[in-house]
Amino acid sequence: MELNEALARLDAAEKKLYAYNTASSALYLDGDTVAPKDTAEGRGVALGILAGEQHKLMTDPALDETLAFLKEHKDELDLAKNREVEELSRAVRQLKRIPAEEYMAYAELTNQASDVWHRAKETSDFELFRPCLEKLVAYNRKFAGYYDPDKAPYDALLNEYERGVDRAYLDGFFAALREKLVPLIKAVGEKPQPDVSFLHRHYPVEQQRKFSDYLMEVMALDRAHCGIGETEHPFTLNFNSQDVRITTHYYEDDLASSMYSVIHEGGHARYELDVDPARDYTVLAGGVSMGVHESQSRFYENIVGRSRPFIEAIFPKIKEFFPEQLAGVTAEMFWRAVNKAEPSLIRTEADELTYCLHIMVRYEIEKALIAGDLTVKDVPGEWNRLYKEYLGLDVPDDRRGCLQDSHWSGGSFGYFPSYALGSAYGAQMLRNMERDMDVWGPVGRGDLSGVTGWLKEKVHKYGGLLTPAQVVANACGQFDPTAYTDYLTKKYTELYGL
Amino acid sequence: MELNEALARLDAAEKKLYAYNTASSALYLDGDTVAPKDTAEGRGVALGILAGEQHKLMTDPALDETLAFLKEHKDELDLAKNREVEELSRAVRQLKRIPAEEYMAYAELTNQASDVWHRAKETSDFELFRPCLEKLVAYNRKFAGYYDPDKAPYDALLNEYERGVDRAYLDGFFAALREKLVPLIKAVGEKPQPDVSFLHRHYPVEQQRKFSDYLMEVMALDRAHCGIGETEHPFTLNFNSQDVRITTHYYEDDLASSMYSVIHEGGHARYELDVDPARDYTVLAGGVSMGVHESQSRFYENIVGRSRPFIEAIFPKIKEFFPEQLAGVTAEMFWRAVNKAEPSLIRTEADELTYCLHIMVRYEIEKALIAGDLTVKDVPGEWNRLYKEYLGLDVPDDRRGCLQDSHWSGGSFGYFPSYALGSAYGAQMLRNMERDMDVWGPVGRGDLSGVTGWLKEKVHKYGGLLTPAQVVANACGQFDPTAYTDYLTKKYTELYGL
Repeated sequence: MELNEALARLDAAEKKLYAYNTASSALYLDGDTVAPKDTAEGRGVALGILAGEQHKLMTDPALDETLAFLKEHKDELDLAKNREVEELSRAVRQLKRIPAEEYMAYAELTNQASDVWHRAKETSDFELFRPCLEKLVAYNRKFAGYYDPDKAPYDALLNEYERGVDRAYLDGFFAALREKLVPLIKAVGEKPQPDVSFLHRHYPVEQQRKFSDYLMEVMALDRAHCGIGETEHPFTLNFNSQDVRITTHYYEDDLASSMYSVIHEGGHARYELDVDPARDYTVLAGGVSMGVHESQSRFYENIVGRSRPFIEAIFPKIKEFFPEQLAGVTAEMFWRAVNKAEPSLIRTEADELTYCLHIMVRYEIEKALIAGDLTVKDVPGEWNRLYKEYLGLDVPDDRRGCLQDSHWSGGSFGYFPSYALGSAYGAQMLRNMERDMDVWGPVGRGDLSGVTGWLKEKVHKYGGLLTPAQVVANACGQFDPTAYTDYLTKKYTELYGL
Repeated sequence: MELNEALARLDAAEKKLYAYNTASSALYLDGDTVAPKDTAEGRGVALGILAGEQHKLMTDPALDETLAFLKEHKDELDLAKNREVEELSRAVRQLKRIPAEEYMAYAELTNQASDVWHRAKETSDFELFRPCLEKLVAYNRKFAGYYDPDKAPYDALLNEYERGVDRAYLDGFFAALREKLVPLIKAVGEKPQPDVSFLHRHYPVEQQRKFSDYLMEVMALDRAHCGIGETEHPFTLNFNSQDVRITTHYYEDDLASSMYSVIHEGGHARYELDVDPARDYTVLAGGVSMGVHESQSRFYENIVGRSRPFIEAIFPKIKEFFPEQLAGVTAEMFWRAVNKAEPSLIRTEADELTYCLHIMVRYEIEKALIAGDLTVKDVPGEWNRLYKEYLGLDVPDDRRGCLQDSHWSGGSFGYFPSYALGSAYGAQMLRNMERDMDVWGPVGRGDLSGVTGWLKEKVHKYGGLLTPAQVVANACGQFDPTAYTDYLTKKYTELYGL
């Protein structure tokens, strides 16, 4: 084989993977946004077949041969090509541990489960979802053994989402958080709460849609390349660096819910749109890991979006959108309201301070489920027990309990901790950013270009050109959870006058 | 090879084709409905690759072998399997005449052209679209030679859409129409026109959306299996018999436009949803030909939807949706207004009587373009000349002229005549339906179940199980354009008191 031929083969394989991913993404997006209710079956058949074709491509001995040849010639390749070879080899290695039939059956299962979960959540009917969840857990326990038989199953799954992360790492991280956050949450709980009533006046969907357009404009999300849709559970989907979609969910009695969904998903989109287009159609396209992705979404949502300077900058405009609802409300009142910290039931609407407790509940349940220490039928009970223990709350039904998140229905076990890690990475990025430049002056004028520029330079532009650990090191330095606990302590001390 | 193995191979190939079609359809649907403006490139790359994979599958010698084996065993196969073998063999034969690179390049071109056409139409800029159209014409001339080198190129293309149809057949058909319709249109033109002003009052989009829901209900289109979206140019897309989408376009100053788009596309959807689900995931899924499809959409739109009994049945409900706009309007006034016949510029909004003249313009231009008798740069001039000659109108700009339809941008040359044929088939179906049952009594009570039941039995349920000619024979008998001219003569004589 000639080097040029091998490179052409690599390129063809990557483009095909891109095409299969794009096709599946379009089907998922359709399924979650506009598809009629009872159409999952036909989509599932197509998705199963596409997954099978992708599997065939990834396990084709000719691809192995190409990758082996390119590894032998690594000195003749540039960084990007070497990383492509490395990442594709890794993906092939992992995939080969899953037999094709199981891989296809699993693709059909997740498509079906997503549909069932939607209906189960609607009617708060865990029993409806239980058989799906049992199958999903069984598959993931099995897959974990395929991924890395030397690791405990949950460690193997964690490693899929954030390489190098395992239970020991997370147990330590969460313990450090707990040590600082529990007394902080307690202190906050003893202080009077801000008025949030004005966030729950009537906010018509049509007007909120226009407000979303404005928020996307503030984040410089180019609408010719970034769309917004509406789904039960907001998400971001990237087709390529020139085509990213975010979704949100509007509640007419809650302004902050969609506002911060848009900023959160906008953070994911910012990352995707800022990846060097040279990575498009390769395995290095898109954000590098779930943890790094969440660091970006949560940076925009919380560190910037819920900061006093940002609120002060955009509040006059918010009032233009909702003059009646916000009559008599000041920027300071708004800032205090969107930062109200109080244990609550729904993760996606939890405040920045108590958010990690929601993650810890899911972490404990996933850990036990995948270890086989907890059966699926006991999930609601265990969920409710942990919400009582960690957040002091009684869960009234499974809709607001263990059925609230889409992750498990999509087959993601081991994803949740990435949210907490992302928050911690973000706080470290802020610390470094503040050393490099004036962060809050421009933000206070509604100008996010400096923040976005820094993040693009340190994180976004690489896509998968660097490994997740390299990106984290590049933007954060050595991982140190105290940046995060310090950040929260400072913020909530100011907010609540501790 | 064993028979069972061959059947399993056939099934696998058909399912894969279904998956590729579903993937491409999802990408097209996204591109036409919610995708951000500047995202065609990445979609084009994916569509090109999917088309390439589909091409590879269709031209795989193993498939040939399977089909050949099954043909040898045709006596052991049931009607459906034999038809699948026949249709797939035909598709393979035709595809093999197109080299893979051209096939892929063409898929990318049509995706790009659709995007360019949208922009060109928006700005009425034919020059922007011209290079695309030149390439599309060149490809189609070339493809025509691949399809059937013994036929003149346009005849070969016509045969793709409606087997057995050629210029001789159409020249005769259109001549017969012209002979009857020209004096009829002239006679109508000498009569006073009905008042249509109330159709152009302010009809808010939000209320029109609810009206669309009602119309879909009247047509018994199950919303759990049939979605509605909004696009520039309305269309119907079928994923499978359980998942069909229609689109419409709302104009706030025109009630009839979207109303009849919904009924028209609803007719296509009715057909798709009524095909026997046993045909799903096979090459016999979906409507059998463009002509038969248009016969159904136009049957619902014109023969039923613009009939006096139907209008009388639904008019009280229409008034509930738009009480202010329709104050003082009677069902008879509404019936006369939606049937106003007058030469006009836009095909999709043309009345039933003059509609075929729009088709004749396109037919003449396509015929000349593909024959090489007309160059692309001369299309606007020729278009405008023919509109003057056939309809007596001056075309003010290309947006309302040769850029108005999406068909050419999608690579469809030879499709337009199907609309006229479909109208003629529909009139023959009505003649037969009236012999079999009381059509207008139930329609006059808003009950379309009899009409739909007849069409399902005679046309819909077969999908591709019968050939297009068999379906037409089954529902129409021997093709006879006089059923159509008789129908129009009777209708417009009553409307205009000729």
